Amino acid sequence: MAYTIYLSGEIHSDWREKISQGIQQSNLDIEVLSPITNHDSSDNVGSNILGNETSNFWKDHKSAKINALRTNNFISRSDIVVIKFGDQYKQWNAAFEAGIATGLGIPIITLHSPDLTHPLKEIDAAALAVAETPEQVVEILKYISQPSK
Amino acid sequence: MAYTIYLSGEIHSDWREKISQGIQQSNLDIEVLSPITNHDSSDNVGSNILGNETSNFWKDHKSAKINALRTNNFISRSDIVVIKFGDQYKQWNAAFEAGIATGLGIPIITLHSPDLTHPLKEIDAAALAVAETPEQVVEILKYISQPSK
Amino acid sequence: MAYTIYLSGEIHSDWREKISQGIQQSNLDIEVLSPITNHDSSDNVGSNILGNETSNFWKDHKSAKINALRTNNFISRSDIVVIKFGDQYKQWNAAFEAGIATGLGIPIITLHSPDLTHPLKEIDAAALAVAETPEQVVEILKYISQPSK
Amino acid sequence: MAYTIYLSGEIHSDWREKISQGIQQSNLDIEVLSPITNHDSSDNVGSNILGNETSNFWKDHKSAKINALRTNNFISRSDIVVIKFGDQYKQWNAAFEAGIATGLGIPIITLHSPDLTHPLKEIDAAALAVAETPEQVVEILKYISQPSK
Amino acid sequence: MAYTIYLSGEIHSDWREKISQGIQQSNLDIEVLSPITNHDSSDNVGSNILGNETSNFWKDHKSAKINALRTNNFISRSDIVVIKFGDQYKQWNAAFEAGIATGLGIPIITLHSPDLTHPLKEIDAAALAVAETPEQVVEILKYISQPSK
Amino acid sequence: MAYTIYLSGEIHSDWREKISQGIQQSNLDIEVLSPITNHDSSDNVGSNILGNETSNFWKDHKSAKINALRTNNFISRSDIVVIKFGDQYKQWNAAFEAGIATGLGIPIITLHSPDLTHPLKEIDAAALAVAETPEQVVEILKYISQPSK
Amino acid sequence: MAYTIYLSGEIHSDWREKISQGIQQSNLDIEVLSPITNHDSSDNVGSNILGNETSNFWKDHKSAKINALRTNNFISRSDIVVIKFGDQYKQWNAAFEAGIATGLGIPIITLHSPDLTHPLKEIDAAALAVAETPEQVVEILKYISQPSK
Amino acid sequence: MAYTIYLSGEIHSDWREKISQGIQQSNLDIEVLSPITNHDSSDNVGSNILGNETSNFWKDHKSAKINALRTNNFISRSDIVVIKFGDQYKQWNAAFEAGIATGLGIPIITLHSPDLTHPLKEIDAAALAVAETPEQVVEILKYISQPSK
Repeated sequence: MAYTIYLSGEIHSDWREKISQGIQQSNLDIEVLSPITNHDSSDNVGSNILGNETSNFWKDHKSAKINALRTNNFISRSDIVVIKFGDQYKQWNAAFEAGIATGLGIPIITLHSPDLTHPLKEIDAAALAVAETPEQVVEILKYISQPSK
Repeated sequence: MAYTIYLSGEIHSDWREKISQGIQQSNLDIEVLSPITNHDSSDNVGSNILGNETSNFWKDHKSAKINALRTNNFISRSDIVVIKFGDQYKQWNAAFEAGIATGLGIPIITLHSPDLTHPLKEIDAAALAVAETPEQVVEILKYISQPSK
Repeated sequence: MAYTIYLSGEIHSDWREKISQGIQQSNLDIEVLSPITNHDSSDNVGSNILGNETSNFWKDHKSAKINALRTNNFISRSDIVVIKFGDQYKQWNAAFEAGIATGLGIPIITLHSPDLTHPLKEIDAAALAVAETPEQVVEILKYISQPSK
Repeated sequence: MAYTIYLSGEIHSDWREKISQGIQQSNLDIEVLSPITNHDSSDNVGSNILGNETSNFWKDHKSAKINALRTNNFISRSDIVVIKFGDQYKQWNAAFEAGIATGLGIPIITLHSPDLTHPLKEIDAAALAVAETPEQVVEILKYISQPSK
Repeated sequence: MAYTIYLSGEIHSDWREKISQGIQQSNLDIEVLSPITNHDSSDNVGSNILGNETSNFWKDHKSAKINALRTNNFISRSDIVVIKFGDQYKQWNAAFEAGIATGLGIPIITLHSPDLTHPLKEIDAAALAVAETPEQVVEILKYISQPSK
Repeated sequence: MAYTIYLSGEIHSDWREKISQGIQQSNLDIEVLSPITNHDSSDNVGSNILGNETSNFWKDHKSAKINALRTNNFISRSDIVVIKFGDQYKQWNAAFEAGIATGLGIPIITLHSPDLTHPLKEIDAAALAVAETPEQVVEILKYISQPSK
Repeated sequence: MAYTIYLSGEIHSDWREKISQGIQQSNLDIEVLSPITNHDSSDNVGSNILGNETSNFWKDHKSAKINALRTNNFISRSDIVVIKFGDQYKQWNAAFEAGIATGLGIPIITLHSPDLTHPLKEIDAAALAVAETPEQVVEILKYISQPSK
Repeated sequence: MAYTIYLSGEIHSDWREKISQGIQQSNLDIEVLSPITNHDSSDNVGSNILGNETSNFWKDHKSAKINALRTNNFISRSDIVVIKFGDQYKQWNAAFEAGIATGLGIPIITLHSPDLTHPLKEIDAAALAVAETPEQVVEILKYISQPSK
C-alpha cells in the first residue's frame, strides 16, 4: 500500500516540508521525492562539475540536463506527482514536469491558489485533484493510504 | 519522408502562418497540426456545447478537456512538436504540452527570444533544436526533408 | 486532421445514426466504427459459426470472444471512444469497453441522461466530455475538427 | 512467487474478508489490495477534503477522481484483479475496472452468480477464471501459489 | 474497417488458399499475409544468399533468421493471427508464432482438428476463436467485417 | 545482480532439479520459477475447483486458463526464460511459452538434444543460447552472475 | 507487404545506391530512408541555421541534434534497419543507430567485410542477417518481399 | 533515492574502480553494474560452455549472445548508463550499448577525452552529461543523490 510521490514546482515556500511533516505525523507509508531545491546549486551544477561556459545558454543547458538526470528519474518512478504553482517567476519547469508525468501516464495533483485557475486550466483538467493547501494534499494522501481489507 | 508537426503555444502572433507558408513555399511534405487558436472559442467551448457552469473553475475545466481531445491527439500523432513561447501571459499550457510530448518520447523544437533562456532552460535542454525565429524552424524542416538516397 | 471514433454501448436507440448523420452533414473527416448492433446475430454468432453448446455459459462465451475480435480491434485503433448508457439492461459491456479504452490510454466521451450521474461517476471522471445528447457529441466533433492553421 | 491481487466490485457483502481469510489461513504470500469500501466516505471524500460543490455532478466528480488515485494505482500494480458482481446496484464501476485491467494486460478473475452469466459474457470471456464463490477464488490462489521446483 | 491477418502454421495443405478465396468471394477488405510456404526455399535461404555453412545448426540458423525478418514483421502488423495445426511434423514454429502474437497482445484464432484439443489447450485458451475448418475462419471474418452503423 | 528465471517445458525429466541444484551449489542469487509440473493436477485443476464439464474441450480450457494465471505471470516477471524440449509428446505449450517470452522481449535459452535442431530452428534463432544439458545452463548462469566491478 | 528500411552508416561508398537500384530493378515495394549523407552539410547544419558557436563541442552538438530529428524518426518508422560498417573512421554513430534500433525492437541487418567480425560481434549477434555485399541485402529483401498466398 | 547505474565501454583502464570507490567513499545508495571485463573470458565463453566452433564468426557469435544475456538485462534495469570511450580499439560495442539505452529511453552519461568530441557528437548529443573524468561522474552522482526534502 506504499506510495512514492514526487513534489514538483515552487521552491520558495515551505510546502514540501508541510507535506512531508503531514506524512510523518500520520505515519503514512509514502516515500517523498523532490528536486534539488537549492536555487544556486541547481543553476550552477553544470559549470561547477563539468567546467565553465562562456555563454549563458550552454551554462544553463548543462545544469538543466544534470538536474534532469534526477527529476526525470523521480517522476518516472512515482505513483503520483504533486505540482505546486505560486505567484512568482514563470515556473515553466513546473508545467513541463506536469506534462512529462501526464505523457508517462502518471497521475498528478496540482496545488495552487484559485487566482491561478484560468492559466492552469489545462493542467488542472489533467489532474486527479486540485488542491489549494498542502494540508489538503496530506488529507488526500491519508485517505488513499487507508489499509486494504 | 513525410512529417507531421504540431505547433504548440503562443496564439497572439503569426508564427504559425509563417511556418505554414515556409512549408508551402518549399513544397515540403509536412502536415501541420495546431490547436484551436481562437481564444474566445477555446475558452467557452465547454459552456457553449455542454451547458453553463456557475463556477469559473468548472467552466474552464469543461473547455480545457474538450480542447485536450484535440491537442493530446495531435501531439501523439506528431513526429515533431514545435513550441513557441512569447513575452506575454503565463503560457503554462505551452510548457505542459512540451512536457507531454517529452513524456511520450516525441522530439520537440522550442522557439523563443534569447531573453527567455533562463526560465526555459529545462525545456530547451529536452529540445532537439532551440530556434529564435519561425524562419529557422522552416530551415530545419527543409533540411530534414531532403530526399533519401 | 482525420479522427477515428468507436461508438460503444446502447443498441436500442438510434444515437449512432444521429452521430453518423451529424458527421456526414458537417462533412467531418471522421471514420465511425461500431460493434455488431444486431442483438440476435451478436448473441448467437459463436454457435452459428463454430457449433452448438449445451450450456448457456459456453454459448455466450464463444459469441463474446468472436465479438471481441471486432470490438477490441476497433477500440484500439480509435482516437476517441464514445460510450452511451441508457436506462435499460445492465450494460456492463459498455462500462467494460470504457475501461478497456481507459486502460489503453484512449480518451472517452460518455453520453447519458443526468439521472445516471451517480452510478457513472467513475467513468465520467475518466472522460474528457460528458454529453447528454448525440447532438452535443456532434458539436464536440465539429469543434475539434476545425482545420489547423 | 508472491502475488499482488486487487479485489474490485461489490462492497455490500463480506467476500473480500473471505478471500483475505482464506489467504491467511493457507499462509499464501499474496498482498491484497482493495478500494475504500466505506460508501459514505468514498462518496464524500471530494467535498470533505477539497470543499463543497453546489452540483451533484461535480461533487461526485471530485470524489471519483480522488478514489481513482488509489484504485488505478492498485490495479496497475496487481498481478491479478478479482471482480465481484452482485445482484444490486448498477455496478458500472466494477465493469469499468475490469476493463482498465484488461486494457493494461492484467489478467482478471470474475466472481458472480450464474444468474449473471448473460450480461457478464464479455467480461467473463476476457477472464482467466469465472468463479461463483470466494472459496473458489482462494482455491485458485492456493493452486497457483505452489512452490516452484 | 479493414483488417490485416497473418496465416501461420501448416504449409502442406491448401487452407491458406481457401481462406484467401473466401475473402475474395465475399469482397472482404482484408489483407492476407503469409510466410514463405515453399519448404526448400525457406530452409535454404540462408545458405543460398549468405553462403554455405558446414554445420546444419548454423545453416538452419541463418535461414530461420531471414525468415524471421518477414514473419515477425507480419505478425506485428496484423490485427489477427490465424494459426493452423495439422497432424504431421512437430510444428513448433506454429506454436512459437502463436506465442509471439500473444506476447504482443495480438488476438489469435486457432484452426485444427478436435483430435488435437488436448496438446493445444494452452494455445486454444489464449485464442478468441477455435475453428476446425477454413470455412469457419472465413465466416468469422465475414461476421466481423460487417459495416459500422 | 539477482536474476529471476522461469523454467518452461518438459515435465517428465529432472532437468529443473538439476538447474536448481546447480544454482544452489554455486550460491547464485537467482530465483527459479516453474509451472505446476504435476500432470494430473495441472490437467484437472479447472474441474476440480470450478466444477465439471461435459466436454473435454471446456475441461481443458478451464484448466489451461488457471495455469495461465501462473505461467504468464512468471514469464513476464522473468529476466530469462529457459525452455526444455524432449523427444516425447507434442510440447506445443513449450514452444508457445517461448513465443510469449519473445513477444514480450524477454530473452530465452533453449535446452534440447541436437536431434531436434531442425524443427526448433526458429526458436533457437530467437534464443541467446542453445544448450544441450542442464549443466551448460548452470554454467551460463554462473558466468552471467559474476559480481560487477 | 510493403517494407520501410533505413540505411545507416558509411557515407563514403555507393552501397546505398546499389541497394536502391536493386530494389527498383526488382520492383520491390520498399521505401528507402537514409540520413543526410553530405558530410559538410551534416556537420555544419547547426551553425548554418541556428548561428555560430565558439566551441567545437557545441557546434557539433547543435548539428547532431538537428540530424537526430531526422534519423531517430526514420529509425523508429522502419521495419528493418541496415547498417554498413567500413574500414575508415570511427563510425560510432553507425553502432549507436544499430543500438537505438535494437532498443526499439526493430530488426537489423549488418553489412560489412569479414575483417570486421570480431569488433562487430555484439552487433552481429543482435542482427537477423550479416551480409558482406549490398547485393546480398537486395537478395534478402527480394526473398522477404515475395507475395503472400 | 537509490539509483542503479551500468558502466559500459572501455575495459582497459581503471575508470570503473574509480567510480565505484567514489560511490563508496561518499556512501551513495547506488548499485553499480558492469559487464564481464575479463577480455579472454568474455571472448571465449561461448566455446567454453557450449562447445567449439570451426569458424571465428560463430565462435564470436555464441560468446556475444551469452554476454548479451547479462548486458541487455543490466542496461534495462539501470536508471543511468555511463559509457566510457578510450583511444584504443574500435569500441563499437560501447556505442551500441549507448544506443540500446537510448532506444529504451534510459538516460546516458558519456565519459571521454575532448579529442573524441567529433566522432562522438551524436552520442554526446543524446547524453544528459558529457564528462572527461571518472571524478566528474562521481560528482554528478553525488549531486543527484542528495536527500529529498
